[in-house]
Amino acid sequence: MTLILSNDEVEAVLTMPECIAAIEDAYVELSEGRAVSRRRSDSIVPTSRPDALYSLKTMDGVAPKLGVAAVRINSDILTWPERGGVRRRVKVPAAPGHRYVGLVLLFSCETGEPLAIFPDGVAQRMRVGAANGLAARHLAREDSATVGLIGSGWQAGAQLMAITAVRPIERVRCFSPNRENREAFCREMTAALGVEVTPVSAPEAAFRGADVAMCATSSIENVFFERWVEPGMHLSSIKRAEIEAGAVGKAAITVIHSHDTAPLQVTTKGLHVPEEEAGKGGALSPEIDFDSLPTLPDLAAGKVAGRQAAGDVTCFLNNIGIGYQFAAIGALIHRNARKAGLGNELPTDWFTEDVHP
Amino acid sequence: MTLILSNDEVEAVLTMPECIAAIEDAYVELSEGRAVSRRRSDSIVPTSRPDALYSLKTMDGVAPKLGVAAVRINSDILTWPERGGVRRRVKVPAAPGHRYVGLVLLFSCETGEPLAIFPDGVAQRMRVGAANGLAARHLAREDSATVGLIGSGWQAGAQLMAITAVRPIERVRCFSPNRENREAFCREMTAALGVEVTPVSAPEAAFRGADVAMCATSSIENVFFERWVEPGMHLSSIKRAEIEAGAVGKAAITVIHSHDTAPLQVTTKGLHVPEEEAGKGGALSPEIDFDSLPTLPDLAAGKVAGRQAAGDVTCFLNNIGIGYQFAAIGALIHRNARKAGLGNELPTDWFTEDVHP
Repeated sequence: MTLILSNDEVEAVLTMPECIAAIEDAYVELSEGRAVSRRRSDSIVPTSRPDALYSLKTMDGVAPKLGVAAVRINSDILTWPERGGVRRRVKVPAAPGHRYVGLVLLFSCETGEPLAIFPDGVAQRMRVGAANGLAARHLAREDSATVGLIGSGWQAGAQLMAITAVRPIERVRCFSPNRENREAFCREMTAALGVEVTPVSAPEAAFRGADVAMCATSSIENVFFERWVEPGMHLSSIKRAEIEAGAVGKAAITVIHSHDTAPLQVTTKGLHVPEEEAGKGGALSPEIDFDSLPTLPDLAAGKVAGRQAAGDVTCFLNNIGIGYQFAAIGALIHRNARKAGLGNELPTDWFTEDVHP
Repeated sequence: MTLILSNDEVEAVLTMPECIAAIEDAYVELSEGRAVSRRRSDSIVPTSRPDALYSLKTMDGVAPKLGVAAVRINSDILTWPERGGVRRRVKVPAAPGHRYVGLVLLFSCETGEPLAIFPDGVAQRMRVGAANGLAARHLAREDSATVGLIGSGWQAGAQLMAITAVRPIERVRCFSPNRENREAFCREMTAALGVEVTPVSAPEAAFRGADVAMCATSSIENVFFERWVEPGMHLSSIKRAEIEAGAVGKAAITVIHSHDTAPLQVTTKGLHVPEEEAGKGGALSPEIDFDSLPTLPDLAAGKVAGRQAAGDVTCFLNNIGIGYQFAAIGALIHRNARKAGLGNELPTDWFTEDVHP
């Protein structure tokens, strides 16, 4: 049977410590060349709305050790509004019921069969959190007790789940431009994590004296600047452009997520894709030579060393996601959901065939 | 609702003339830059069987004019046995019930929503046939009456459906190495097409005097040779290596399917992939400069001329499939299946989400 799972069911079977362990184990496989991840591709075309584009984003990964392959698909209506002085990429929930469209298909790499289909939302959030958590375990000071955070969205929560899973965090100060959002987020996260999460009204107030500085925004421009860096700090980001190049330059060691930094982008003729241009402009910091930086899989495999001294600044740039993460987290979801008896089962025959295609 | 269709249902709603028309219209869009096709990618890893590899193959395409995007996924257990003196790539039906795994997911590029999920088999066969049929309409002599065919499999049938849809074919002679297979195939196709399809025991006997020479094999080595070319002949193939380079060299015009000739291949470290090596060796004919040859979309759009003289040799090399074909055929399948009330409907909510992923 092929298991159809909802985000609620995925959430019910995942814990952040398990995700971090799964990502760590899977990344060792990837670094050793025993697993593969296919570079993301974005196929972008106009829609009938003048302010929106359609993007079909896909990425694949196969984890032989876990017996699974994953395809992650995003079928998005994209806009680029400006909010709080920063231009952001915002998906429009244009599917029936005002919903977004992101799917993971999980296959067996021993039989080929489709094991599960589930929305990507929770898995995506957990794999981003897990990657930054894994990096922090290698790079943040072991006695890190305070976190400064910019962002109060869906991803920001996972970042706090991750850092509190790997370090003895006691206090978090959180800034985001919208006061109501950040206050609600802080109340919610304080309750969820059992750690005091306090809203602050300026980013400087969040980062001053912090052991770990975390960016968890959807910004395609810098939101963390060199002047905020302090000795011994670990810098952590989830979007390539969040941390100013000057701040990255202060780090004794900078690790990125993947060298597959440039998705394969195909567009209709002459199409203007806002993010692409911002990326080519100042925001993505041509000063940062991503190709020369070590990756998280190599850090996990011990091929590069983590933090060396308490006073060092360290930096993890989660510069781009990889399809392989959905194989690692997907295997965990499938195993745990089966154990818990969750999900709708559909006949595997619906997704297989008797002709040699 | 998201429509789940079987191969039988897909077959019930597709006719070859409609597929050729759909491909033609869609290819004009592609040639004019108003649609996109993302280069195929193959992620290949070992399995626990020493003679088999696992391959996750994906390709995407978006057709704004048709309002759809498609992802085609193959989750294959691959082997490379030698049969009839020729090495072939053979998929193993290792999924439950001895089944293969190929899927097409069709999305709306206006709302992002998943419209349909169906196995790729019939769609794949019809799009290959339709492409070669479209090429033949531009390249074969208008009075073509005889076809020589090598191959008696699933794809060979679609090739005959296609050529009989575009030219007044009266006789087909078919060779394939296994006598029983070719005789059964000829009986079946004679009944299906109302055209006499005769088995012959040597390839030369199939091609001698033929107006159209069609290769429809799974061979990764040459099966049609220069010495068989006759004036005025149209050569047609569905695998890059089928036609010897010398035969291609005799053509006044050669059109290929796509310039995306090299799939993005990622493998585990040091993995030996037989097809790749054969491709790099003699079979794929380094003498053929694929990059310089015009494509079928450009032929469909009138950017390159078709046949010029009755005595010319013409050639169509369906060198590689493209994801975009599944958008073109997928839109047709979805529209016709909706009209006919076919398929299992699942709640679209199962494949969408309320969180911004």
